[in-house]
Amino acid sequence: MLTLRFLAIDTLRENVAFLHRHCTKYRVDDFLGLARVEVRSNGRSLLATLNVVDDVGILKPDEIGLSTSAFRQLGVAEGAQVRLVPPKPPRSFDLVRAKIDGAALSDSQLAAIIRDVAENRYSKIEIAAFLIACASFMTTEEVLGMTRAMVAAGTRLVWSDQCPVVDKHCIGGIPGNRTSMIVVPIVAAHGLAIPKTSSRAITSPAGTADTMEVLANVDVPMERMQEMVREVKGCLVWGGHVNLSPADDVLISVERPLSIDTREQLVASILSKKLAAGSTHLLIDLPVGPTAKVRSVGEAVRLRKLFEHVGDQLGLVMEVALTEGSQPVGCGIGPVLEARDVMAVLRGAPDAPADLRERALHLAGRILEFDPAVRGGAGGRRARELLESGMAMATMERIMAMQGPPPARSALGTLVHEVPAAADGTVTTIDCYRIARIARLAGAPNDKGAGIDLLHKTGGRVRRGEPLYRIHADTNANLAFARAFAEENSGVGLGHP
Amino acid sequence: MLTLRFLAIDTLRENVAFLHRHCTKYRVDDFLGLARVEVRSNGRSLLATLNVVDDVGILKPDEIGLSTSAFRQLGVAEGAQVRLVPPKPPRSFDLVRAKIDGAALSDSQLAAIIRDVAENRYSKIEIAAFLIACASFMTTEEVLGMTRAMVAAGTRLVWSDQCPVVDKHCIGGIPGNRTSMIVVPIVAAHGLAIPKTSSRAITSPAGTADTMEVLANVDVPMERMQEMVREVKGCLVWGGHVNLSPADDVLISVERPLSIDTREQLVASILSKKLAAGSTHLLIDLPVGPTAKVRSVGEAVRLRKLFEHVGDQLGLVMEVALTEGSQPVGCGIGPVLEARDVMAVLRGAPDAPADLRERALHLAGRILEFDPAVRGGAGGRRARELLESGMAMATMERIMAMQGPPPARSALGTLVHEVPAAADGTVTTIDCYRIARIARLAGAPNDKGAGIDLLHKTGGRVRRGEPLYRIHADTNANLAFARAFAEENSGVGLGHP
Repeated sequence: MLTLRFLAIDTLRENVAFLHRHCTKYRVDDFLGLARVEVRSNGRSLLATLNVVDDVGILKPDEIGLSTSAFRQLGVAEGAQVRLVPPKPPRSFDLVRAKIDGAALSDSQLAAIIRDVAENRYSKIEIAAFLIACASFMTTEEVLGMTRAMVAAGTRLVWSDQCPVVDKHCIGGIPGNRTSMIVVPIVAAHGLAIPKTSSRAITSPAGTADTMEVLANVDVPMERMQEMVREVKGCLVWGGHVNLSPADDVLISVERPLSIDTREQLVASILSKKLAAGSTHLLIDLPVGPTAKVRSVGEAVRLRKLFEHVGDQLGLVMEVALTEGSQPVGCGIGPVLEARDVMAVLRGAPDAPADLRERALHLAGRILEFDPAVRGGAGGRRARELLESGMAMATMERIMAMQGPPPARSALGTLVHEVPAAADGTVTTIDCYRIARIARLAGAPNDKGAGIDLLHKTGGRVRRGEPLYRIHADTNANLAFARAFAEENSGVGLGHP
Repeated sequence: MLTLRFLAIDTLRENVAFLHRHCTKYRVDDFLGLARVEVRSNGRSLLATLNVVDDVGILKPDEIGLSTSAFRQLGVAEGAQVRLVPPKPPRSFDLVRAKIDGAALSDSQLAAIIRDVAENRYSKIEIAAFLIACASFMTTEEVLGMTRAMVAAGTRLVWSDQCPVVDKHCIGGIPGNRTSMIVVPIVAAHGLAIPKTSSRAITSPAGTADTMEVLANVDVPMERMQEMVREVKGCLVWGGHVNLSPADDVLISVERPLSIDTREQLVASILSKKLAAGSTHLLIDLPVGPTAKVRSVGEAVRLRKLFEHVGDQLGLVMEVALTEGSQPVGCGIGPVLEARDVMAVLRGAPDAPADLRERALHLAGRILEFDPAVRGGAGGRRARELLESGMAMATMERIMAMQGPPPARSALGTLVHEVPAAADGTVTTIDCYRIARIARLAGAPNDKGAGIDLLHKTGGRVRRGEPLYRIHADTNANLAFARAFAEENSGVGLGHP
């Protein structure tokens, strides 16, 4: 038996077991062929990828080390006695092999795979194999089966006596598109339940949870969310600890580095999260534009149809809004700057970005029409009324108060660089991808006050040397990174329209 | 800049970089999205997968640790200053994405991928993605292009003024099938050059290199191999350090844990190794049987045709021999026991296993017919003559002498358990897979004297309680493991034929 050691190495969602090369109890070579071991202790077991340590300073020959996630998952204390057995790959991997050979999998087969994925029984290469097999071809029935399986493999929230429970989700890719923080107070002010869980940014300069955290606490326990839905009909919280569709998180941890982005996986991912969150009615914001995630209307329509088909089969009332996605929304990009724009819209400030306001009103209007009491076509007007009357702002204040103050005060980054226009002209294009990249280099979202403040949107006229946008940062190093990248290519195209 | 530290953690062919969570120079979060970093130092660079350390005992916040292979590949001393840049996935990965979408890749596209794979620029999940995309479909042209690219990405041996250079290769799966150690001395005694490089066992109880190492040193430098080919026409060495088709080794390190075994990858893998080894003529031993790798004649013929087609296009003279694969070959399984059988055949001992002898003679005969001076159909007779005259044994002795003595003396494991027949009957089946597994549990190939000695082959009659085979081991623990597994199911089927 080996003695268990916690090795504080975070292997990013892969369970890793560390053995010393000259392990006194097992022959390491016996496990190298498959590069995996099954770890057993106190009646619990775990499949882990094997790493071999050649340094007794890190691990002793009679010890086994487990990485952060593996240690947590095994759930046994340090010092416990551990036995190793030759690993059997999860039985469901035979089904992945069948899928590679061209099979379409049944609901129960997909459920077996997804269960093992959610329980971290798959190694990263096994997950990659599953994703690529699915990327080659996947029937609509399989998308449906996979979505159901993903919901079943995690927690499912129930909002007792709230029906409908509405939600919105944007497929992402457009910086500054922070409409949720306007839509939720409007819809909640109308009286529809909209308990919104959002993510933090992973590759973008801000997620809704990052931006909301400038204004309020977003790490809200489940009981408080239930209370908020009863009292103010809405919340704007971080969804990270609720264990909604955990298989989705595991799959994404491999999809992202591979940049494998299929329609089928996107639909299963989003709908499983929303069903798990207890939503009954869902509006998807699907921006289309040359630097957005979806680049043509044809592609957008195919994606919309798949969303609708799968949503219908799963009993979700679905709307998909194809929206403008040719440039960032609003002016600010980065948590503090986006929060500023959102609050300007909610307050009805005259200089609030009109595109952000109109987009939020359009989406809120479509959601309000989920309410049987709202006449077809009347949602937009109702949304505007709730915004202009200040009722949405009042609801936002109640939401912020109930969530509590933010964990830290955030201020706009005081180090500023203005990126000048290289010539006289009219702004013809703004590259969403590049602008997001520059904002991240400036420090967003970790430095909440870092980011970009756009001074012109497309159609705006500038003279040579006038600033196109301001970069805000907290540190000189980040400002220099972002500036150098912007000097290479500002992301703003000038021309004569 | 960070200070470079060697972290003696062998991450099994994946380059891993370790950063402290509270890294003082970079924000770890910025790299978590893609889970990779590009490491630069002294004009050298490396792509590595990121792990995050939370223990200053392992790594300090101003350090970067590299795993064994990553450190070796970067080739910069500990203490050097290191810069990190956001990783760009290898450019050739776009081609993998095209392949996933159904494209057939050109020779130059495959070459770009294979080059990056050989240089360890792909992460394991990227390799898995490439393998699965190829497993879904691959044209014959692609197999050809991939084989060429794999040869080009490594060392290619040249055996000056030796033509033909012959070789044999078994696709594996049959325990005890140690014909190379008989075929090489026969063919070399005839005068054909046969510089045989073999592998050590990875998942089987013995590779040819493991068994030969019972008799002689197998870790032979290139110059000595050249000398041996000139003087005795043959050698039997370990091919591990010659860097033949290194991309193959990388691909196999992912294929094996996934148990993804496609015809196309098998052909590219074997032919690339053989071409890189400088072979001009090649005989493939392709065993067919219910527990072999290839289970039906139809499957075997398809595989044979692919071998022939690709071999022809690459200018290799190829023969594929479909052989009996329904049970182990010879009696001994495990290095010492197999070496015993091989030497018995070479010495002409009356109790030498006839099946091993006849199989080796058949294969050697077919190889001898690669010699233009040998009449079609006369190879078998010539092989028998070389064996029975003792010339093959004399050549084997010269080969052993030139390779030098083994690094350690090996003796048969002295702990023995006899597995008894459960009833009277005739042996009808012997499960290759199960027998191999039991031999490995007994300690083979690491304990060279461990393994199985079959006392009956199919057709043999036994009485209840009589031993079917003996398990040999060096330690009580291994004997107990192997015995328990054999008691569950001995792998030997009894019946009345």
